[in-house]
Amino acid sequence: MSNVKQFNNPLTGEGPEKDVVVSSRIRLARNLKKFLFPNKADRKTRNEIIYFFKNNVEIFSSDDYMFIKMNQLDNIEKELLYEKNFISAEHARKNIGRALVINDNISVMVNEEDHLRIQIISPGLNFNELWEKIGLMDDKIEKDADYAFSEKLGYLTSCPTNVGTGLRVSAMCHLPALTLTGRLKNILGVIGKFGLTVRGVYGEGSSSSGDLYQISNQITLGHSETEIIENLYSILGHIIYEERKSRQLLINNEHDKIKDSVQRSLGILKYSHQIEEEEALKLLAKVKFGYDTGLIEKKDIRYDFFADLLINIRPAHLQIYAENIDEENLNIIRSEVIRNKLI
Amino acid sequence: MSNVKQFNNPLTGEGPEKDVVVSSRIRLARNLKKFLFPNKADRKTRNEIIYFFKNNVEIFSSDDYMFIKMNQLDNIEKELLYEKNFISAEHARKNIGRALVINDNISVMVNEEDHLRIQIISPGLNFNELWEKIGLMDDKIEKDADYAFSEKLGYLTSCPTNVGTGLRVSAMCHLPALTLTGRLKNILGVIGKFGLTVRGVYGEGSSSSGDLYQISNQITLGHSETEIIENLYSILGHIIYEERKSRQLLINNEHDKIKDSVQRSLGILKYSHQIEEEEALKLLAKVKFGYDTGLIEKKDIRYDFFADLLINIRPAHLQIYAENIDEENLNIIRSEVIRNKLI
Repeated sequence: MSNVKQFNNPLTGEGPEKDVVVSSRIRLARNLKKFLFPNKADRKTRNEIIYFFKNNVEIFSSDDYMFIKMNQLDNIEKELLYEKNFISAEHARKNIGRALVINDNISVMVNEEDHLRIQIISPGLNFNELWEKIGLMDDKIEKDADYAFSEKLGYLTSCPTNVGTGLRVSAMCHLPALTLTGRLKNILGVIGKFGLTVRGVYGEGSSSSGDLYQISNQITLGHSETEIIENLYSILGHIIYEERKSRQLLINNEHDKIKDSVQRSLGILKYSHQIEEEEALKLLAKVKFGYDTGLIEKKDIRYDFFADLLINIRPAHLQIYAENIDEENLNIIRSEVIRNKLI
Repeated sequence: MSNVKQFNNPLTGEGPEKDVVVSSRIRLARNLKKFLFPNKADRKTRNEIIYFFKNNVEIFSSDDYMFIKMNQLDNIEKELLYEKNFISAEHARKNIGRALVINDNISVMVNEEDHLRIQIISPGLNFNELWEKIGLMDDKIEKDADYAFSEKLGYLTSCPTNVGTGLRVSAMCHLPALTLTGRLKNILGVIGKFGLTVRGVYGEGSSSSGDLYQISNQITLGHSETEIIENLYSILGHIIYEERKSRQLLINNEHDKIKDSVQRSLGILKYSHQIEEEEALKLLAKVKFGYDTGLIEKKDIRYDFFADLLINIRPAHLQIYAENIDEENLNIIRSEVIRNKLI
């Protein structure tokens, strides 16, 4: 099953507003009417659920999709999928009665918190396109599967916070100028009032290394899918505007200091012999800031270094790159991977 | 008098043991019998002293030497001479009744603390050669000048600490490994017992930026010149041995950490947009350490970058390089000068 290693990084490539919105993600939570939720189901039932999807849902059997039972994968393959954001940490670390259906930038976790977690990712701010694609996928699945649905509540889910649309729309935002000027705090306050939530880049509970923030809808009930998406577009439009304005202000007021800071970050990344993931992320984000604002010349750096390295500096990706390295040398390999990409 | 700007940096070029001893310096304090010491002499007398040397000492009139009255120079020219270590800070900043006789790496201050301060500098550990040259110079001057000399005490000087030989022999040492391992403290203790003294790199009272230390003899009385020089050679031999041993030990035990530190220093120097003199010196010293120990590949960096930049990052040199820059832009020009030399 070595082809799991060959999946593309879903964050690389063109995308609108990439200076502020690194990537967009939509996921739908869906459950079958005739089975217990995964956390209530025993092992036998979970396997029946997998069997049901594999044999009854036509799209999952098409040549475009890979249907993988999670226990067919070794640890490093699961970590790779996790680091590429195709599966959750829990789905990577708990094997039994779980599966994954995957194609390019669409991944469907089977028996995660819900029977299905359908997810699509792309670079930049791209919800309309993603929504169209994931809707199509959802329709194709629903053609062959009877979803748990209530006329009053909408789609039923394992956790009440997802009931209704089962929809989570999120954007990974890079907000160095709002962070540096301290204006982010006010903006985050506003975000809360619009039913949105903010997390660090590596998911729940993580800190905001590299000034990266995941902004997503909190509420799934009482609003239509398009309302949720429109709401996020509107808030993100505001954030993009404010971030860009703050960047310009910073550069006008402290050009030399900021230029020095972003260039030094590039220098350290190009010359370090070993580097921790956290520090690398911070410095890469500074270089991205310099690149997007023109303080670092475009010719001095490869396009898409950030989206590429955001994934490729993570531990399992380094393991695959270097084969059988010990924990200590991971930091040395990480420096090498960064150097190779930046030069 | 713009040719003052064209003097070579006396620290550049080949020299023995340059990995530890950056440069060697010898100076002699001499006074004329028939005049008061400079600090006791009035303006008229100071000018008579200058007049005496200019007209009676043959070597000072030879084509090889430039005879300059300090008030003929503008401030930037005097600062340049000071930054190249040809004159003292006091000689640069106080004009009246002072002169300088200079040729390549020999400089003679007239009416500094003593009537004559004859000084010679060269890269590396080089006392024997320097002593031969300065001795020859001293003889040539003495042929035409009646030195203040006592059979009992030796050469008489303005300050009692220089009486006897009037000789100060000093070496600028780069001791990063002894500093890092904390072993320097013991060694400095020993140095004191041998009548030597240690100062920071930029002269009296300065701190040891970049792990650079000036080691020189304290005592000028009761020992012959050759004894003083032999004593310094012997102590420096010990320090060089200990420093090299510590470097090897550090590299054996902490190769990756040290390599990372020196390479990052190079990265920052190559990419900074602005940099203070103090930070630049620290980073350059780290790069020198990496260069001398082979942790930074010789092909990646120009030979003699350290001795070159040690002088060329100083304010007056930057002023000459860039012409009429304000204080704030000095740090930007400094980064440019460093980049140009390192690339």
